[in-house]
Amino acid sequence: MASGVFDHPWLGGLFGDAAMAEIWSPERQLAQMLAFERAWSGARGACGLSDPALAGQAQAAIDAARIVPEDLRAGMARDGVPVPALVKRLRADQPEDVSAAIHTGATSQDVLDTALALSLRDSSDLIAARLEGLSAALAALEARFGAQPLMGRTRMQAATEITVADRVETWRLPLLAHLERLTHLRPRVERVQLGGASGDRAALSGQGQPMADHVAAALGLSSAAQAWHAMRDGVADYAGWLSLITGTLGKAGQDIALMAQQGIGEIALTGGGGSSAMPHKQNPVQAELLVTLARFNATQLAGMHQALVHEQERSGAAWSLEWMILPQMAQATGRALSVAQALIGQVERIGTPG
Amino acid sequence: MASGVFDHPWLGGLFGDAAMAEIWSPERQLAQMLAFERAWSGARGACGLSDPALAGQAQAAIDAARIVPEDLRAGMARDGVPVPALVKRLRADQPEDVSAAIHTGATSQDVLDTALALSLRDSSDLIAARLEGLSAALAALEARFGAQPLMGRTRMQAATEITVADRVETWRLPLLAHLERLTHLRPRVERVQLGGASGDRAALSGQGQPMADHVAAALGLSSAAQAWHAMRDGVADYAGWLSLITGTLGKAGQDIALMAQQGIGEIALTGGGGSSAMPHKQNPVQAELLVTLARFNATQLAGMHQALVHEQERSGAAWSLEWMILPQMAQATGRALSVAQALIGQVERIGTPG
Amino acid sequence: MASGVFDHPWLGGLFGDAAMAEIWSPERQLAQMLAFERAWSGARGACGLSDPALAGQAQAAIDAARIVPEDLRAGMARDGVPVPALVKRLRADQPEDVSAAIHTGATSQDVLDTALALSLRDSSDLIAARLEGLSAALAALEARFGAQPLMGRTRMQAATEITVADRVETWRLPLLAHLERLTHLRPRVERVQLGGASGDRAALSGQGQPMADHVAAALGLSSAAQAWHAMRDGVADYAGWLSLITGTLGKAGQDIALMAQQGIGEIALTGGGGSSAMPHKQNPVQAELLVTLARFNATQLAGMHQALVHEQERSGAAWSLEWMILPQMAQATGRALSVAQALIGQVERIGTPG
Amino acid sequence: MASGVFDHPWLGGLFGDAAMAEIWSPERQLAQMLAFERAWSGARGACGLSDPALAGQAQAAIDAARIVPEDLRAGMARDGVPVPALVKRLRADQPEDVSAAIHTGATSQDVLDTALALSLRDSSDLIAARLEGLSAALAALEARFGAQPLMGRTRMQAATEITVADRVETWRLPLLAHLERLTHLRPRVERVQLGGASGDRAALSGQGQPMADHVAAALGLSSAAQAWHAMRDGVADYAGWLSLITGTLGKAGQDIALMAQQGIGEIALTGGGGSSAMPHKQNPVQAELLVTLARFNATQLAGMHQALVHEQERSGAAWSLEWMILPQMAQATGRALSVAQALIGQVERIGTPG
Repeated sequence: MASGVFDHPWLGGLFGDAAMAEIWSPERQLAQMLAFERAWSGARGACGLSDPALAGQAQAAIDAARIVPEDLRAGMARDGVPVPALVKRLRADQPEDVSAAIHTGATSQDVLDTALALSLRDSSDLIAARLEGLSAALAALEARFGAQPLMGRTRMQAATEITVADRVETWRLPLLAHLERLTHLRPRVERVQLGGASGDRAALSGQGQPMADHVAAALGLSSAAQAWHAMRDGVADYAGWLSLITGTLGKAGQDIALMAQQGIGEIALTGGGGSSAMPHKQNPVQAELLVTLARFNATQLAGMHQALVHEQERSGAAWSLEWMILPQMAQATGRALSVAQALIGQVERIGTPG
Repeated sequence: MASGVFDHPWLGGLFGDAAMAEIWSPERQLAQMLAFERAWSGARGACGLSDPALAGQAQAAIDAARIVPEDLRAGMARDGVPVPALVKRLRADQPEDVSAAIHTGATSQDVLDTALALSLRDSSDLIAARLEGLSAALAALEARFGAQPLMGRTRMQAATEITVADRVETWRLPLLAHLERLTHLRPRVERVQLGGASGDRAALSGQGQPMADHVAAALGLSSAAQAWHAMRDGVADYAGWLSLITGTLGKAGQDIALMAQQGIGEIALTGGGGSSAMPHKQNPVQAELLVTLARFNATQLAGMHQALVHEQERSGAAWSLEWMILPQMAQATGRALSVAQALIGQVERIGTPG
Repeated sequence: MASGVFDHPWLGGLFGDAAMAEIWSPERQLAQMLAFERAWSGARGACGLSDPALAGQAQAAIDAARIVPEDLRAGMARDGVPVPALVKRLRADQPEDVSAAIHTGATSQDVLDTALALSLRDSSDLIAARLEGLSAALAALEARFGAQPLMGRTRMQAATEITVADRVETWRLPLLAHLERLTHLRPRVERVQLGGASGDRAALSGQGQPMADHVAAALGLSSAAQAWHAMRDGVADYAGWLSLITGTLGKAGQDIALMAQQGIGEIALTGGGGSSAMPHKQNPVQAELLVTLARFNATQLAGMHQALVHEQERSGAAWSLEWMILPQMAQATGRALSVAQALIGQVERIGTPG
Repeated sequence: MASGVFDHPWLGGLFGDAAMAEIWSPERQLAQMLAFERAWSGARGACGLSDPALAGQAQAAIDAARIVPEDLRAGMARDGVPVPALVKRLRADQPEDVSAAIHTGATSQDVLDTALALSLRDSSDLIAARLEGLSAALAALEARFGAQPLMGRTRMQAATEITVADRVETWRLPLLAHLERLTHLRPRVERVQLGGASGDRAALSGQGQPMADHVAAALGLSSAAQAWHAMRDGVADYAGWLSLITGTLGKAGQDIALMAQQGIGEIALTGGGGSSAMPHKQNPVQAELLVTLARFNATQLAGMHQALVHEQERSGAAWSLEWMILPQMAQATGRALSVAQALIGQVERIGTPG
């Protein structure tokens, strides 16, 4: 059984987000790799690198392949990437000329980074929808309770009285900024990766750009004039965006946990977690989780930026570090958004207790 | 399927370490929680907090309980800890007096932190054995090749000629230091956690210390004069130790990757990963993995130290952050050690090429 | 004498950047605070919060004040911010009605965050100019050497031959992306901060927005519809941008250090650092420095994102953390750009050695 | 003027610690480098590498040298280390045979890392004294208020009543553990560094070990059987220890800030910072500072562990990263201890308000 908190049989109940987990699941990742290979063979046919009929046979072979994630395990252990094993399977039992229409001219990183672009696109769709949902929920909270008085607190000391709206705005407005940021981020990461062995598309007989265009069109990504294999700023920037979101929600979670303290009583929530020793307690588990996820992503972000030092045409060391971190950051962000939505839905009262 | 690299169906082939995965598996964690509860009921009987016969019945009930990890999922989501759901299951269908001999006087953190102490003990056993095995392998490498000349390199420039032994010693000697460090670390983390609701053992009728002693003896841990629930320095220190190990191995991996460059040729390795575009290439995948794991743990360590700011008697936010990070650090360390052992075993030649 | 590497009497020779140091100097920070106070008094007059004549007298008093940085030290130690001491000095010896036209209605964070906005604007100006200069230098390098062959290297192994242009593009193209990112970032951080005691501008008799507009116009910033005092995403995002830049340059520095190895010889540089033991050595000190600065900023970024958990209306703890980190990140970035420019200027030859 | 918070003319009032600043000052660092060179020349004489009379003249020349920190700036910029410039100055105007008794056989890293060992020793002395002082102050606080009732709080919710002693113990006991840890750490870092050009002491005619012994004795360090130049675990471990200390104090600071909230009122402090907008407020500036310093050091620690990947015989990139980070961590720790001592001295009342 999985020990990571997102997939763990019980910890996953707290940390896991089903929709985001699906996006980053091995099954989906495998499907994305196959989608690349299918698009690649099609592009070879369209760009004259393969006979169109053979390209069609290659696509049919890819469609018919029965590959499960575990099939790639031994190859991954050996090669450090799953693609050689995948390609070997796809080509198995195919005539040589069909085999040649599969993957030829691409390299592992083309497959994996393009699959990553698809994962990020799907993550962005999910996150954007949730950012909108959450900002609407916060707007509704403001509409209902915004005029209520609330003690403003600076440096953890009572300052001057503000309103609930003033506090809630500090949770809601950054969400709108995050949505705006996404419009600039998307084109930087929803791009096909195409470089070939060393990134210069040299094995494509001058058809590099049309190939990239075809693959991009088939996958719903934008094309790219160059391989971005060794320029990881788009990916690191995306990770920063994820952490900005969890940071905003962590601030909200911290505020709510502070408001829920006995002696403060500025918020009343339905639900709340129980204690094995004190069954009457109502713990603000979800508010605390928002803080945890914020601090987790803040921590991880450093690793994504360390991975910017991506030497030469492909750094196995730096690239693998991304694989360890970025999917977790996406899942932490997905979960923070779903738990924040739930938490706001549980607010029964907010503001200075009457 | 699990998306985390340690449990992932294909990434796990590279990143996963079976022995360490078993230690941190949900099944083992559940068994450790049950071991605590069993020891607890026994201690209640021995310390006069429960009738010994009832305590025995409680233990029998715990032994007979058929609980699987998924049973705790809903409770975890609600309570932020799995223990209330676990205790509810253990007490189900038991007479009230037997129920009262189960868990009473303990709290979730006692269970979970004591289980953590067991996980750390098992991890330490595994790591210690591997540190010894790896240092022996490095000593053998020195015995075989140590006198060979090797260009010393400072600031990535050729400096003066040294020997292979000089280089290998910088990989091996820190391993001995890590073993020595462990002797001081073990007593700090292999301790029973016992505090009760707020950490003062107040619900134990003055039997707090004997209870701790009994539970410790039953589980093979040392006892503790106080709860360490809100003092996380032992756990953070342990995380630092893990990262020191991966850091040492990352240095070795970086050295080996540099030695294996064309034009340098200071090492020859059997094996090596293949490329989907260049089947002839021999990539130093394992050496790079050591660098990746070092940078991963270095990144994570910051989060464990952020979690030292553990407010009041129990910080759900800070504590949960440990759950997200520490098991991954242990697994990264386990994997780094196994891959380093494999890598050293693949050295066919080392030293300035003849 | 200063112990920090940017200001250190000898370490500053390597790490310091005079132009960026000036931007973040205490003298400049003090001038920016005074500029805020001057603009504030003017705005009070313009918005009818103070008699215009008194506002003019207040501005004259601010202009005439002879305050040196050390004057604020004791107040900083006591208050955790330098502003109360600053305001006390500004008001000293002024009639009560003039005093009332100074700072009244603002709070420390308004002063400090607006001053920060000015620092970031100045930093952005400097960085943008350098990004342009460096990308031009790299374009010139490509023009001169781009067609030269170079061994492409993946996973630190020779792959297929590429050209110098292919490699240099991975250094240059992200710089253009960083310039593009800046156009979106600037409006988010070059904003006046105005909130008053608890962020709701309550002490401004409904003149909050006009006051913000006036101050913004006087300082060359954009106005802001709300205080952003507790919404730190703009600042954290900016920090991420700094680290993206140093990451790009760190990748270039790592590449250059690898190219300069004996046995590889793919680059020849004029200059290079000497060794006290081996005077003949030419160490790629500047290339290594780029790696160091990248890893430094990557590390720091985590702290800036931890500071997003900025509780309530003002978190002294989180805000102070920004002060410890962000100025250093700006200086590391400034230095990375200047050293990269120098390094590129030293390239005498690049490409596979003939 | 210095922009770093520790040396800054006003921020230094909050963040600076005079005693720790002195330890890490350039003046002291220069003195330590000179102390190494003096000991080195003496050792050369004692070990037969130089004529004893010439060694004495070399020492006299070192004693007579009038070098100020700025003298090393240009050399640092060129060489990436200050030592070549230092040695050139020391040898200036000396006869060739005396020059040869200065520094010959050592390298920059021997000087700088041995100087670092001295800085760490002095830091440890200061920190140890303060840990003892602070634990005594906390013991006194317990003696005075320990029996007072205090609401135990878990997950930021009232749990069960404990005593003030229970809470204060979680601040005090880890300090004792940190003192104990120091006894194991000291021998690992208070060691002379001696390796010569590539770490093998090859230029010392077989006198490497006696030379190390003599230098160690002269400087009050322990000797070392090998150079530790490329094995940075001791230094990284020390950084972890610093962060454990600030983490403990950050927990105390967070607790105190929470106790000082209006509506909670569990602590009364004399002093407290003022606000420019609300002069009556008593901000728990010192308690917040403890949280800030804890989060700062936790952040930095990741960088020190990244620097463990110290390639080959000397990594300019990784080593320089230590210079950027470790002195700051020491200063943050020194300040956290002094501010904690001050804060505890300000406690007028602690416990559930009467």
